[in-house]
Amino acid sequence: MPSETLFLCTRRARRQKRKTLKMSLLQTTIEQIKPVDQTLTPAIQAHLDDLTKPQGSLGQLEAIAHRFCSIHQTTKPYLPKKRICCFAGDHGVTAQGVSAFPQEVTPQMVVNILLGGAAISVLTKENNIDLQVIDMGVASPLPEIPGAESALEKLIDCKVAPGTKDITLEAAMTEPQAQQALEAGITLAQQAVKDGIGLLGTGDMGIGNTTPSTALYSAYLNISPDSIVGRGTGVDDDGLSRKLKALETALDRYHKIDAPSTLTTFAQLGGYEIAGICGLILGAAANHIPVVIDGFISTAAAVTACQFNPAVADYLFFSHLSHEQGHATILENLGATPILSLGLRLGEGSGAALAMPLIDNALHIYNNMATFSSAGVAEKS
Amino acid sequence: MPSETLFLCTRRARRQKRKTLKMSLLQTTIEQIKPVDQTLTPAIQAHLDDLTKPQGSLGQLEAIAHRFCSIHQTTKPYLPKKRICCFAGDHGVTAQGVSAFPQEVTPQMVVNILLGGAAISVLTKENNIDLQVIDMGVASPLPEIPGAESALEKLIDCKVAPGTKDITLEAAMTEPQAQQALEAGITLAQQAVKDGIGLLGTGDMGIGNTTPSTALYSAYLNISPDSIVGRGTGVDDDGLSRKLKALETALDRYHKIDAPSTLTTFAQLGGYEIAGICGLILGAAANHIPVVIDGFISTAAAVTACQFNPAVADYLFFSHLSHEQGHATILENLGATPILSLGLRLGEGSGAALAMPLIDNALHIYNNMATFSSAGVAEKS
Repeated sequence: MPSETLFLCTRRARRQKRKTLKMSLLQTTIEQIKPVDQTLTPAIQAHLDDLTKPQGSLGQLEAIAHRFCSIHQTTKPYLPKKRICCFAGDHGVTAQGVSAFPQEVTPQMVVNILLGGAAISVLTKENNIDLQVIDMGVASPLPEIPGAESALEKLIDCKVAPGTKDITLEAAMTEPQAQQALEAGITLAQQAVKDGIGLLGTGDMGIGNTTPSTALYSAYLNISPDSIVGRGTGVDDDGLSRKLKALETALDRYHKIDAPSTLTTFAQLGGYEIAGICGLILGAAANHIPVVIDGFISTAAAVTACQFNPAVADYLFFSHLSHEQGHATILENLGATPILSLGLRLGEGSGAALAMPLIDNALHIYNNMATFSSAGVAEKS
Repeated sequence: MPSETLFLCTRRARRQKRKTLKMSLLQTTIEQIKPVDQTLTPAIQAHLDDLTKPQGSLGQLEAIAHRFCSIHQTTKPYLPKKRICCFAGDHGVTAQGVSAFPQEVTPQMVVNILLGGAAISVLTKENNIDLQVIDMGVASPLPEIPGAESALEKLIDCKVAPGTKDITLEAAMTEPQAQQALEAGITLAQQAVKDGIGLLGTGDMGIGNTTPSTALYSAYLNISPDSIVGRGTGVDDDGLSRKLKALETALDRYHKIDAPSTLTTFAQLGGYEIAGICGLILGAAANHIPVVIDGFISTAAAVTACQFNPAVADYLFFSHLSHEQGHATILENLGATPILSLGLRLGEGSGAALAMPLIDNALHIYNNMATFSSAGVAEKS
């Protein structure tokens, strides 16, 4: 190599190194995410087609096995250790009367999840899924439960602030706060890799969080909020009107910002638990771990992650079509096929927990069925 | 009681007894089926509504738990032992070139199922579901696999005849043959009760069996075959034309019969494995055991069972919406909501096996979640 070229290369490497040193965990992670390599596609498909069934007759189950193998870059997948991370946070916008439940339910439900009484506690336990509960921004202290101290100690404390600000009046959070929350999620994904987790799932707990989620959809995907706003945990007609009004006010405020970045948009309209989920998704994609997206809230985090880097989409399984008005529109917009459609509207990760056994079953099929030749079965005439 | 009345009662009882003695197992079973008693509905619903989640937010999962409790007549359901019965049979109508696979695949796949290589073998094993394989009317002998004798001995022999007759030319079977096949299914349901099974599932293996299934739908539900005929395991356009022509010929022949009974219709157009499934459903309903219906073929058996006694419908879970053209129309006609919609078109009981874990999860939710009062969580404001 001529010395001039060597000099330039060295200079470029130094510049690169300085840039890397200055880059945040968020930035590094976003840059690390690449589309899934499709080199193994023919081999994976050939194996699926050689199993003793009419080709394609296991429908979406075959697509799931294929996607899992591609993400893990293998033709011989192992059955993954599974974890769902359930992120909790509160929302200033609840002051506008957008939810059917009072804000103190967030910490009460966090405790209920930790003590094993919530839907996600039951579903993860019974389906052999590890569960992490993370305080990203719960507004009020957890209720104290005498004798339950050790269970409550399992709460992972990543609290950025006690709830977001009211998005009808001001930004939900500052950009450094948004980045801190996103990076907490990334760090949890990195920890999952170290723990040998092969399949991650997302979950949320936060009274009022369909409102910021709808605001994010509207901002990122340019969809009018009235076409996707829904009843969340079950607001009545008046509550729904207040929710739509709050959304329109927040979005009017937001649209005055000139050319907002993905991070700016998120800080303006998002939430801390949504940031945690988004960070987990980014970290998983950067580390080639598939992520099972729960419902309406988690999908808003997934949309955010795809705004940071569209290649994220390759790493996602959408667990279910939510009952929440608007989710169908969003999934269609993403070109995503949900695994389940059970009319769920709970969040917590419940849909992800229900879809994970189906992913396991897809892998059992891929790994354990006989092939036409080995079983001596005649093929299609 | 006046002696005259006593005399009449005794005479009636004697007549009743004579009638019972003469009644077939099929007739007794059909008469035994009653609509599910809804007395416990308020108690079951109250419990579901007291769990720490917004009311109804677990959607179909709540409906599944409710239905299971009602059928078992309990407010404290146990987690059921599960069994899928996979019935095999051949079809004379394959002579008309209606299937993409040759008929010898039926016994080959029966062997493959018994040896653990088929989709249903894998799915039942991995999901802790007992599997029975029943020869109702396979046309040709099973291939011999040296060293596999003990696995093959597990096949339950209820063979009525080596395949049905070609329905384009004559009745698929005689009415006594149809009754024998139906009663074999009923007997297997009775055996399941003795074995402590609390949830049954259906499955089929039979090359060409979407054709008789479509014929049964058309005859029982008065639907034109061209609106529901599909590609089964994957016939090409020519095969699809031959299939529709065969259906029209068979139905033209059938429609010349004056006021056919449910049994006559079935004997004319049905199949032995479909009869086994139908009998299993009837026996399950008579014994208050819920049955998970697989796909297109099993639904035809369920429709037949409902023709025998409409109260059967109360005992059914429809596992999935098949990819097979026409299944959506049929489920809509039945007012049935399938649990899954994964584009499956395999049969064997694969859809039933995939839906059973979701039924388990519905029961875990019902049994193991905390209530609002016990968890100290605030209710809807």
